[in-house]
Parts: sequence; structure tokens; C-alpha cells
Amino acid sequence: MLSKRHPQLNKNGELIHLLTLEGLSRAHLNQILDTAASFVTVSDQEVKKLPILRGKSVFNLFFENSTRTRTTFEIAAKRLSADVFNLDIQRSSTAKGETMLDTIANLSAMQADMFVVRHSSSGAPFLIAEHVAPHVHVVNAGDGRHAHPTQGLLDMYTIRHFMAKRGKQFTDLRVAIVGDILHSRVARSDIHALSTLGVPELRAVGPLTLLPGGLEEMGVRVFSKMDEGIKDVDVIIMLRLQNERMKGALLPSAQEYFEHYGLTRERLALAAPNAIVMHPGPMNRGVEIASDVADGEQAVILDQVTFGIAVRMAVMSLVAGNKA
Amino acid sequence: MLSKRHPQLNKNGELIHLLTLEGLSRAHLNQILDTAASFVTVSDQEVKKLPILRGKSVFNLFFENSTRTRTTFEIAAKRLSADVFNLDIQRSSTAKGETMLDTIANLSAMQADMFVVRHSSSGAPFLIAEHVAPHVHVVNAGDGRHAHPTQGLLDMYTIRHFMAKRGKQFTDLRVAIVGDILHSRVARSDIHALSTLGVPELRAVGPLTLLPGGLEEMGVRVFSKMDEGIKDVDVIIMLRLQNERMKGALLPSAQEYFEHYGLTRERLALAAPNAIVMHPGPMNRGVEIASDVADGEQAVILDQVTFGIAVRMAVMSLVAGNKA
Amino acid sequence: MLSKRHPQLNKNGELIHLLTLEGLSRAHLNQILDTAASFVTVSDQEVKKLPILRGKSVFNLFFENSTRTRTTFEIAAKRLSADVFNLDIQRSSTAKGETMLDTIANLSAMQADMFVVRHSSSGAPFLIAEHVAPHVHVVNAGDGRHAHPTQGLLDMYTIRHFMAKRGKQFTDLRVAIVGDILHSRVARSDIHALSTLGVPELRAVGPLTLLPGGLEEMGVRVFSKMDEGIKDVDVIIMLRLQNERMKGALLPSAQEYFEHYGLTRERLALAAPNAIVMHPGPMNRGVEIASDVADGEQAVILDQVTFGIAVRMAVMSLVAGNKA
Repeated sequence: MLSKRHPQLNKNGELIHLLTLEGLSRAHLNQILDTAASFVTVSDQEVKKLPILRGKSVFNLFFENSTRTRTTFEIAAKRLSADVFNLDIQRSSTAKGETMLDTIANLSAMQADMFVVRHSSSGAPFLIAEHVAPHVHVVNAGDGRHAHPTQGLLDMYTIRHFMAKRGKQFTDLRVAIVGDILHSRVARSDIHALSTLGVPELRAVGPLTLLPGGLEEMGVRVFSKMDEGIKDVDVIIMLRLQNERMKGALLPSAQEYFEHYGLTRERLALAAPNAIVMHPGPMNRGVEIASDVADGEQAVILDQVTFGIAVRMAVMSLVAGNKA
Repeated sequence: MLSKRHPQLNKNGELIHLLTLEGLSRAHLNQILDTAASFVTVSDQEVKKLPILRGKSVFNLFFENSTRTRTTFEIAAKRLSADVFNLDIQRSSTAKGETMLDTIANLSAMQADMFVVRHSSSGAPFLIAEHVAPHVHVVNAGDGRHAHPTQGLLDMYTIRHFMAKRGKQFTDLRVAIVGDILHSRVARSDIHALSTLGVPELRAVGPLTLLPGGLEEMGVRVFSKMDEGIKDVDVIIMLRLQNERMKGALLPSAQEYFEHYGLTRERLALAAPNAIVMHPGPMNRGVEIASDVADGEQAVILDQVTFGIAVRMAVMSLVAGNKA
Repeated sequence: MLSKRHPQLNKNGELIHLLTLEGLSRAHLNQILDTAASFVTVSDQEVKKLPILRGKSVFNLFFENSTRTRTTFEIAAKRLSADVFNLDIQRSSTAKGETMLDTIANLSAMQADMFVVRHSSSGAPFLIAEHVAPHVHVVNAGDGRHAHPTQGLLDMYTIRHFMAKRGKQFTDLRVAIVGDILHSRVARSDIHALSTLGVPELRAVGPLTLLPGGLEEMGVRVFSKMDEGIKDVDVIIMLRLQNERMKGALLPSAQEYFEHYGLTRERLALAAPNAIVMHPGPMNRGVEIASDVADGEQAVILDQVTFGIAVRMAVMSLVAGNKA
């Protein structure tokens, strides 16, 4: 019996690329989170370098601009002692009419070892992973509305970390994702990971115009009322409201959005005691989240950033250690 | 008796940030200059690297663009073996509506060790220094019209170096600063440092429209006539005339400016024999300085650049060595 | 008897800059190619680093933008353990009215060890080489229509490598360069190197409007018919057709160009069996080259890229090892 091989796993089922969290097993996710845990302490040390990727060439290919995400990958790669190359793709050969695959083939010929890819088109990192030489690894840093797997993983790390302090595991949790789920690759990656890790109650909260179809089929409960949606949850994942949405027909105004879906101190009180508040950043204070909540005791938003470095170090070192 | 602590010093009076030269003691300044002297020789060695900042993450945060100044800090940090991250702030999260302090909080969460900050608003580096975690150090690379402390320090280094060859100390000198002092953060930092180091005669020379009030109260003699202003001085610090000034109502034209305040060979003869000519760069040849003076024997303009690397290495290694 | 010294050689005839292949001896070219051969294996190793330029500062000065070429030099320099500084020249002091030579003088004062220069004006790297301090080395990364010596060298490396497998040397070869030779610095560098290395039959193929005068005087046979030009050749070097040419009066249209000069499978059959197909990239598929030829067995286009890293490592390490 033939089965189509998962594009990010080798024939031993080991991770050689990280393209999506969909289809990864609980064991895969735990391996990444456990590896990240060992790197969290590295970042606290006086000398924050490990020789794991020494002499390796990591290329940041950001077809869509994101200074922050690019920087986190650059930090992670340099802490692993890699040489990092940031390509200004907007000004490069692709602008001269070269195809993306010719660009990739050229960079591979320069003996790249890893591509970190951000692209506005869903699936671009898959296309690249299908065409690279066997020694090259691809990490998806966000593709269209499809996936943002390292953000999903750092969210899982954050949840595991803080819930363990409260004596809880994934299988004990109620988690609410709030906001523009329709356009969010973060939400998509979080939903896949939370399901795989056995979260029994997963909720999507937002205006119906910003919720995609098919959520119930994935086991997600849908709420259009914020107060009901976050009632008794252990974890609230707030999503960023893209400015462009507010200008379109999907939403009335930022003020009205805040009134209905903004996370205020009063609303937060409806969640479980000690619930944590997460946000992938950058935040729109006063739009999706009140400033006092963003800076409050229950917010773990900056911890997410810190753990994000360790999680990216874990992903890079794991894929680099496995052979196609 | 309580005193408000100086924001750039810890409770032992040690430098933990470099925000301004105002309020630094002569001992502080001399410590930086002496440390820089030890680094000047490093730059001449075959291998120009020291392990002082190995594994540390230095972030260049240039909210105002300055390729040259950014490059000098990048060189200094890399010679100290730091990992350097250049953030394209104009294209980053601040452009997505995030506040500057949220951006800083995020970068701190990535375990930054040092921020080198350039900003068009006076005081921005102070604001940042007030909000960073205790292990993070802030170096001001120029803020508005307020201060440019590393430029001030490299000017002091240059003066000390060349005047020592002439058997002179700061307490023996006549120094003239010439040009648009009103808008110059370099002039402001120089005046503070020169005063602290005991220069007995400090002069400001320029059109009255470009001289700020309050100079006399700081012990600075004011001259609107160039020939009188530079008579018998040991050091002439020429300032760059910003192009935008020439378009405004403050100045008639570049030609007329040169006629009245341009440093020519004839005018330079009015200064003390062996007087040195300094300029922070980039120069407008034929506007504030004649080409043959800029390239002449008394010009030490390129020495300033060389010493600037050593001075920035000194500042970075000193602040990184002190704990909040 | 006085002779004017070649600007890129010291008085012992050793290479201290690489500005052009014109005037370099066969021994010079072979030394570079032999050195590159030793670096090709480095790029295949697990840790791709050599300490040859450790502590050295290499500045990429790209006055004309070229992300790909800049990246190849950055990779080469980092594999030699240099510190690499990419200057955003468009946004730097030259934009503030500073002269190019003042910019260079300033960067030299920061103890730069090497400048890699790309400029739209022919001769700019020569001008820079004439003005740098004796310890500074200049590598031309393409100047105007004049020269692109590292591309020429990597082309030579590629030809030597693949022809050796067929038992042939430069003195046995027929080589055709096809396309817009008039505007091509690559063609100019290739012609100089191929002549020096003793290629007995060198051909230029293209529309007469895109062929420069004087080719026959250089020993190059001129063909305006593609089928005749590539008949029985061992090596075909295709040139990129710049988009801007197609808009001008020099050429009718991309389709018509492809019809007359595009390299198709049928045309390739006219060349010698096992002839190799080269292209400096980025390719215009369907304009100067058919896709199946670009991806075919005889194409060595990606090998050129790989060898280009080793060739640039060779050039950098050789010039850095010689004293002015």
C-alpha cells in the first residue's frame, strides 16, 4: 500500500522542513517544545551561543515584509552560530522577472542550508520545499492565510509553561481564540496544534463576518458574543485586527469593534481565575485589547516573544539534524 | 537627603547607559577616553576582534536614518564580537501603529543586551532607558537637537590626542565651534564635554540667527564675525550646514554663507599655528569649508572617524560591564 | 625605462585589487582558478568556514543595486570569517551631497580592509583603488559596461571544469558568446579572459545593433546568424537580454528575438556534442533561452553559481594576502 509522504517528514517520519502544524503528531509537537525548553536557559546565559549551526548558511527570504518575525529568526539562527543572510527580495532578481523557483535554485547553488520563507501566497513554502536540494531545509515563517507554524508552536510553549504552574495540562484546558479568525494564519496554526495536543474545549470568538466556515467540523465551538465566548476559559488568544479590515465592509469601526470584542478588565473577569492573555503582536491598544489588560498581570505577551526565540532555535536545530 | 539619580548612572555612580555628556564628571569622561586609547591599537592589529561582547545582542534602532553612524556602531560592536541586528524601523511594527515602547518591550523580550538609538525627537533614548529591563543598556546615537554623546566623545579624544603632541592639555586650550550651533546636537555635546574637561576659552561662532540663547551663561563667548572668532584658537570645530537651512529664511545662500563663515586657508592662518580643524561629516565642500583646508595638513577629520570606532567600543564595553 | 604600473598589481606583479581581467596574465588567471579549486571543497564540508579573513572588515559598496551579486560576495567573505558590512549607499551620505571619494575616505578611516564595489559608471572601482590607503583592497563587482571580472573568472572556472572532463583544455576550444554584447560587461570580461587563456576560436553572435565595433581586431569572429554562430562550438555563453533594450529601438520584440537568437533544443544540436550552456543569470526564459534548454543536461548554469562562491573566496583571499 502506497501512501503519499508528508512533505515535511522524511521516510523515518522525522521533521526535515517545518511547513505547517497540520498533520504533525503529538510526539512531533512535544519534541519541538521539549527541545525549546532546553534553549530557554541558553538565552539567559552570559554567552548566548551554541555551535549547532556553525558554518551553516541560513537565508531569510521574506517575500512579504515583517521586520519583527525576520529578526526573531535572525536572533535564533545567530544564537546557533549560523551565518545569516537577509535578502531584500523586493529589490532582487524576482523583481527582474526571474521566477521564484529560479531564485531558489540559484540560492541553493550558493550552498544554502536553510530557507526561512515568508510569502503572501498560501503554499509558497511548500512549493519551495518540493524543489530544493536534499540537504536544504525550509521553515515557513508565515504564508498567506494558511499557516504560521512557529507562532503556533510558541503559543503552545507559552500555554504549556504557564498552565503547568497552575497544575494543568493541555487535556484540562478551555481555550478561546478571539478576533479575525477568517484572515488569521496564526489562528489556523493554533487550532491544529491545540487539537493535536488534546485540548477538550476550543472556542472561536468573533463577529460572524470574520469567522470562517467549517470550524464546528474541526471541533471548535463558535461564539459571536464575547462574554459567552471567554466565560471560564483558561487561555485567551487575542488576534491582531488588521487595519485594512477596519476600512472594508467587514467591520463598522475600531471603536465599535472594541465595544463588542475588545478585551477589557471587566470581560477578563469572566474567564477562569488566573487565565492567561496572549497576543501575537503587534498590538492595537484600545482596538482588540485594553491597555491595562495588555500590561496586566495575566498578560503573557512578552513571554511569548521570549519563548519564540527558543522555539525557533528548536525548529532550526531539529530540521537541520534530520536528513531527507 | 534624597537625590534624584542620574538616569545613566547606577547607584555606585557607574555608567550603565550613555544618553548625554551633560552631568558626566571629568572622571567619567577620562575613563571613556582612556579605555578608547586601549582600543585604538586593536584596530591596527591583524585580527581586530576582542571577545568582550561575545554572545551579546546589540540592536541598532535608527528611527532616523544615518547609514554612516549606524555603520560605525556596527563596526565597533562586531570588533567586540557582539551579534548585531540592524532593524529597519521605518518598515517595522512602529509603522503598523505599535507604540515605540511596545516595540522596545518586544525587542527586550528577545533578550537584547544593548540598544543603540537614533531618533529625531530629543529625549527618545531617555524614555527608552527608563523602560528597558535592568540588564539592557542604551546608547544614544543622536536625538533631535539634544545630544550626540559619542560624537562629542570622539571629538574630545581627537583634541586630547593632537594637543598632547603639542604639549597642551584641555586646560590650556582655546576652542571655537563654528556654524549652525542652534540646530546642532554635536555642538551641544561638545560644549558640555569641553566645559567639564576644563577648557578655559570656549567660543561659538556663527550668524546670530543660528546661535541659541543662553551660551554666555554656559561660559561660551559668542562671535558673529568669523575672523574674530577663530583668532588664536587651538581647535576649530566646523559644523555641517544642513541643506534645509539654506532653503529657509535663516540664511541667504550657500555662497554668501561661505563668504562669511567658510573656513578658508586665509582664515585658518588667523588661528594659532598648528591649530587643528575638525568636522563631524559629511562635509559640504565649498559651503562651510574650503576643499584645500578639508584636505590640508591641519585637518584631522579622518582621524576623528578612526577614533570614533575606538570611542564607541569603549562606551559599549563600559556600559555593558556595569550593572543597573 | 619607466613603465606605468598596472593599477591592480603591486611592484612584484602581485594582485592587490581586482578591477579588470584585461592585462592579467595567464599565470594570474590560473592562480585564481587553482585557488578557487581548493575552496570548492570547503563549501561541501560540514562547517564551511576558513579563518583566512578573520577580523577583517569587508564593505559591500553597491552604488547600483544587485541583491544576488552582493549576496555571493557576502557568502564568500563570511566563509572566510570576515566581518561584512552592507552599506545602503542610496540612503547614505552620498545622498547628502558628499562626494564618492569623501565617502570612501571615511570608510577607509574606519579601518576597512576591503571594498567590493558595484557602480553604474565604468571606471568607478579604479578611481576608488587609486585613492584608498595602502592596506585596503578593492574588488570590482561590476562597473558600467566595462567589466565584471569575478563573473568572467567564474565563467573560466566553469569552462575549465567541464571541459577537463571531456579531455579538453582552453587551447582546444570553440566558444560562442550570444546576445547583447554591446551592453555587456560580462561579455567584455569573458573575451579578455578567454583570449588570455588561449582559446583559438572565439565567436560573438547577435543582432548587429547589439554587437560593438572592434571585435575582429580582438580576434573575435562575428556572426549575425545564430545557427552559423554556434555550429560546432564547445561552449555557449548566453547573455541576459535587459528588459530596457526590448523597449528601445534596438530590438523589435522579445518574441522576435527568441525566434532569431533564443537557444532552443534544435539549435543546441548544431553545437558540438556535449557542448555546455552557460548564462550569468537572472534568465529570461523564453526570451534568450528556452526553458527545456535552461533545465537540460547540457546547462551548467547553477554550477556557475556554485563555483562563483569559490572564485570570489579565491579573489578575496589572494588580494588580501598581497601588500601594496
